[in-house]
Amino acid sequence: MKKIITLSSDFGVQSQGVGIMESVAYEINPEAHVIHLMHGLPSFDLLYAARTMETLNYVQIGFHVCVADPGVGTKRKPIIIETGRGDFLIGPDNGVLIPATRFLEGIKKVVEITNEKYMRKPVSLIFHGRDIFTPAAAYLSKEAGIEEFGDDINIKDLVKGPYEEAIIGKNEIRAKIISINKFGSLHLNIMHSSWDKFDIKLNDIVKVNFNNNSIKIPYATTFGDVEMRKPLIMKDDYDRVEVALNQDSFEKKYKVKIGDDIVIKK
Amino acid sequence: MKKIITLSSDFGVQSQGVGIMESVAYEINPEAHVIHLMHGLPSFDLLYAARTMETLNYVQIGFHVCVADPGVGTKRKPIIIETGRGDFLIGPDNGVLIPATRFLEGIKKVVEITNEKYMRKPVSLIFHGRDIFTPAAAYLSKEAGIEEFGDDINIKDLVKGPYEEAIIGKNEIRAKIISINKFGSLHLNIMHSSWDKFDIKLNDIVKVNFNNNSIKIPYATTFGDVEMRKPLIMKDDYDRVEVALNQDSFEKKYKVKIGDDIVIKK
Amino acid sequence: MKKIITLSSDFGVQSQGVGIMESVAYEINPEAHVIHLMHGLPSFDLLYAARTMETLNYVQIGFHVCVADPGVGTKRKPIIIETGRGDFLIGPDNGVLIPATRFLEGIKKVVEITNEKYMRKPVSLIFHGRDIFTPAAAYLSKEAGIEEFGDDINIKDLVKGPYEEAIIGKNEIRAKIISINKFGSLHLNIMHSSWDKFDIKLNDIVKVNFNNNSIKIPYATTFGDVEMRKPLIMKDDYDRVEVALNQDSFEKKYKVKIGDDIVIKK
Repeated sequence: MKKIITLSSDFGVQSQGVGIMESVAYEINPEAHVIHLMHGLPSFDLLYAARTMETLNYVQIGFHVCVADPGVGTKRKPIIIETGRGDFLIGPDNGVLIPATRFLEGIKKVVEITNEKYMRKPVSLIFHGRDIFTPAAAYLSKEAGIEEFGDDINIKDLVKGPYEEAIIGKNEIRAKIISINKFGSLHLNIMHSSWDKFDIKLNDIVKVNFNNNSIKIPYATTFGDVEMRKPLIMKDDYDRVEVALNQDSFEKKYKVKIGDDIVIKK
Repeated sequence: MKKIITLSSDFGVQSQGVGIMESVAYEINPEAHVIHLMHGLPSFDLLYAARTMETLNYVQIGFHVCVADPGVGTKRKPIIIETGRGDFLIGPDNGVLIPATRFLEGIKKVVEITNEKYMRKPVSLIFHGRDIFTPAAAYLSKEAGIEEFGDDINIKDLVKGPYEEAIIGKNEIRAKIISINKFGSLHLNIMHSSWDKFDIKLNDIVKVNFNNNSIKIPYATTFGDVEMRKPLIMKDDYDRVEVALNQDSFEKKYKVKIGDDIVIKK
Repeated sequence: MKKIITLSSDFGVQSQGVGIMESVAYEINPEAHVIHLMHGLPSFDLLYAARTMETLNYVQIGFHVCVADPGVGTKRKPIIIETGRGDFLIGPDNGVLIPATRFLEGIKKVVEITNEKYMRKPVSLIFHGRDIFTPAAAYLSKEAGIEEFGDDINIKDLVKGPYEEAIIGKNEIRAKIISINKFGSLHLNIMHSSWDKFDIKLNDIVKVNFNNNSIKIPYATTFGDVEMRKPLIMKDDYDRVEVALNQDSFEKKYKVKIGDDIVIKK
């Protein structure tokens, strides 16, 4: 098996930072393999970033860097989280790594990165992705033990994630939009298993309330189950529940945005 | 030689699906090498996607995945096409793979992918790129024979490509716009060899009719042959004929779009 | 150490050219490793492209291709520049490679690429990135000596870079905007060492004049040092000076663009 280092950021294609982080990783560990998981994170949006890190559930166990930090340059701690599954999540202590741990068998250990031996020098105050996070991933993938990077942090002292799981009631789910993809489909903070507990049958209609809208939507398995431009609610590809229009943009039609609350009623 | 797996999709930089498909490929075959051919395919545009797959002509023989399927979730068959050149094209049976085969020495064999042994489980109803197409490419690149994936499909039963080749007459070519690049230049369904048969000399002027426009354009070898912002028609870099403005956008100036018909007259 | 080939272009995600160049490199040298440094260069913008190549300072010594050439198809020479540090910069003789050499210990040797043995055939008149530049990088990374590619070019005969270094006076710096990132922050043609010579202390206020604006900005170390949406001037991550707003876009607020002049006064 290759040792996989993934990189995620809000750099888009408009930054050389993506390629430079890859180069830094290979300088430290030429045997690792770098995958650019996603560099199109919206700027300053912790929800979207956290949701993207959740999808590591579908990537092999590895060393995963997230550079999404609206508070960069402030006193955020750089941290490494070891997951129950065996991954190492590396990024700022701003909550962005927390939701992913719910999918990766929880948190086993957390340390603050303080050991300068494992940093690229000089350390930029801004680009921790290049000088702290990526080097940490590369050294971890090569030889270093997590305990060598710095002192333990107590899990309860970590900054909370930018969203909790939806609240599943008997007749109602109180959820939140945690990402919107390029097709304008929404993803909610509802796991497949939570949705199953809500106990709706395929083709049942639910009422979906958000902002000043209330619309009726069938629970379907996939886009093709509804007519062109009609709404549907379904299990998405990454263990979350999705609200979408068939071949049209729900986001544009209903002017919703990430962070909006959504209530689903039977 | 490395075994090359290429991935193309309409995911843009705004999706982790790109990195996840790469990870899936390496889990199955760590010795292969994944190239992201192009993830900026416009959503729901089969012409553009098919045209992009044509350019595999310029990539070494390999295992090529295309995830562009407006009908995802409907009863499209997932297929593998073995080309005359020796490539394996993997994607939906919606025509998107067909034009490429005209450049890759035709179709040798086609099978429907039904063998679950070669799928990632559980198989999503939506994200066949991750769960069916990419695993197929990886297993083919490793060891599996095409016949192990499922039954043969008769070539004449395949869904037709989204465009045919242009009709080359004595004094007129009836063509179609099959892609438009970020510079606003148009690519037509005319191969270089077909253009040569039309028998126009360099610097000759042709009449180009489309929508309600009729403009005169010189046949040139490259942008620098005409003045700034002037139109030209030329052979492009990928065995097609291109209509462009020198350092300006033909698309914006003339409001054309993919799929529009274009008639070229001597 | 891996042999690193980097590719930069203005192709964005909307072009298969990116993947095809990677494939061409691996066909020639399967042992090299290709890094996509940056493909989001704005079209036809030599300043931005040149500035991006400067950041190779943060990449290991390697073989670096830049495909950014508004004059493609004209009589630009394809060249290889060997830097003092030991890199090979490959691209058009249009000045785009020059500023980077100021960061890479200067220019040691330059040749014009004329030896067809090291080109992909047939050579497109347009896509030199695929047929000339990338093959040159791959052959150089494998075995070929720079002198085998063609005759020497005298350094003073090279096309000048698209910008010089800022002029540092006693009380005033005359600078230029050489790039603007996706967050709307500006980068100026002032190296960290030049800024140090200007001798401003942290938290000092400078007057920044551009177009018809004159604003007062504190010299800070990072975003968090100023209030939300307030301006700051600081050392950036790539050895240049940056002007930005904390979590807002300086570019949009003040309508500046790449190439604009900026004067900084004590």
